[in-house]
Amino acid sequence: MEKLKRFGVSMQESLLKNFDEFIKKHKYKNRSEAIRDIIREKFVEEEWEKGKNVVGCIVIVYEHDVREIVDKIIDIQHKFSSIIVSSQHVHMDKENCMEIIVVKGKVEKIKDLYFYLKALKGVKYSAITKATSGKSLK
Amino acid sequence: MEKLKRFGVSMQESLLKNFDEFIKKHKYKNRSEAIRDIIREKFVEEEWEKGKNVVGCIVIVYEHDVREIVDKIIDIQHKFSSIIVSSQHVHMDKENCMEIIVVKGKVEKIKDLYFYLKALKGVKYSAITKATSGKSLK
Amino acid sequence: MEKLKRFGVSMQESLLKNFDEFIKKHKYKNRSEAIRDIIREKFVEEEWEKGKNVVGCIVIVYEHDVREIVDKIIDIQHKFSSIIVSSQHVHMDKENCMEIIVVKGKVEKIKDLYFYLKALKGVKYSAITKATSGKSLK
Amino acid sequence: MEKLKRFGVSMQESLLKNFDEFIKKHKYKNRSEAIRDIIREKFVEEEWEKGKNVVGCIVIVYEHDVREIVDKIIDIQHKFSSIIVSSQHVHMDKENCMEIIVVKGKVEKIKDLYFYLKALKGVKYSAITKATSGKSLK
Repeated sequence: MEKLKRFGVSMQESLLKNFDEFIKKHKYKNRSEAIRDIIREKFVEEEWEKGKNVVGCIVIVYEHDVREIVDKIIDIQHKFSSIIVSSQHVHMDKENCMEIIVVKGKVEKIKDLYFYLKALKGVKYSAITKATSGKSLK
Repeated sequence: MEKLKRFGVSMQESLLKNFDEFIKKHKYKNRSEAIRDIIREKFVEEEWEKGKNVVGCIVIVYEHDVREIVDKIIDIQHKFSSIIVSSQHVHMDKENCMEIIVVKGKVEKIKDLYFYLKALKGVKYSAITKATSGKSLK
Repeated sequence: MEKLKRFGVSMQESLLKNFDEFIKKHKYKNRSEAIRDIIREKFVEEEWEKGKNVVGCIVIVYEHDVREIVDKIIDIQHKFSSIIVSSQHVHMDKENCMEIIVVKGKVEKIKDLYFYLKALKGVKYSAITKATSGKSLK
Repeated sequence: MEKLKRFGVSMQESLLKNFDEFIKKHKYKNRSEAIRDIIREKFVEEEWEKGKNVVGCIVIVYEHDVREIVDKIIDIQHKFSSIIVSSQHVHMDKENCMEIIVVKGKVEKIKDLYFYLKALKGVKYSAITKATSGKSLK
């Protein structure tokens, strides 16, 4: 763990009052914790915009009884195995499955994998979560 | 103008280094200015989620030669005159116009106006910008 | 106005039912109007991601009695006059003003202007609306 | 699997041309597949806005050597076991772990869990992916 540095911040009384309510609602321990958190969020957005090496999750929801869909999902994952860290399968209900794939690599390649999965017949919903390795965010 | 309060924030050295680069890139004068700004952004999101009295802009891009579109846009604005603060018309090019409507009122009513405009034949693009009266954000 | 082409779309009954409710709620005249609209939205996102020539609105909310803020806002706009189409000023309440600036040009330059305005002391809120000239979206 | 219904859509030639490029880039098999996909995305947004029963993923990135963080993450998950479907742990690098938690339940309760995790000391990044059970989206 890294050493902390300390600095002063000035803020209008009423803004600070609102901020303290925000902190309470969001369960933060103190102002520093909250400020560090919302600063880090900004960096993740920028990492992804710049196309850097990033970490993320691809989520797909699909009907498992659509012809050959399970095979196709596995095939695509094998083609992109260099950027796939792990995957998790969840049975949502009688018809629907969810697959969560953790990815690590170049933004462009991650998006490519995402588009292939998203476009499959039987995939009803898909989303990509932009996260980070935390490397640049200590 | 309101008085400022001052408090201390602690942050990991490397996070602070990244934050200072962010501040430079985004032209902020100092850390306090940047922190106040990103905190306020959080509040605007929450105001809109809660359906409070808010301020915003509706932007539409449309083809002015679509039959009766100009009349329809004016008609709709008159029906919602209680929440419309002002509007601005811009000639984008030979075919396209942009209309920017500043709105102030309940989230629900603003969205209603937005849907009516968005759905008009000839309106090619529309967007809504969530802003704030600044009242709670001093 | 351009000629229309027609093609067939197949959809699950229950998805179509939900879509028809969506159309009603969003005041669209018919399915084609709704589909064209949500397709165009996708293109605007892509235009901005690619850094093309785009159209947009910058919205700022500021306290007019902060020292020299009005001068600074005008100065910055003059420096970026090549990408500014028009601007509109709204008095929100006793303390707050809103300025809406319509911009047209390269994404990078628009963001630069946005960062300068956003970072000014006294600017409490700012947002950028991504729109389009409609040129590529007919 | 459900039966499909077919209907006609009319679109300007140039918009259709752009749409076909979009389809190619996004690897969709045909126009129907693409249209169904972007329609479903709209519904997920609305489900979450309305606070319905939804499905989602919470992603957190954290430093595993922060004191007691692993215990705290497990404790919180136990308190919210009624909405947690499964969770997956990934070792990102020497310092950082990622935990992906699949959740199913009321929007409000999911957000509550999210805030508790997000606010922990040592959690450097967190995100919530809005997905769906697919129930209403067949």
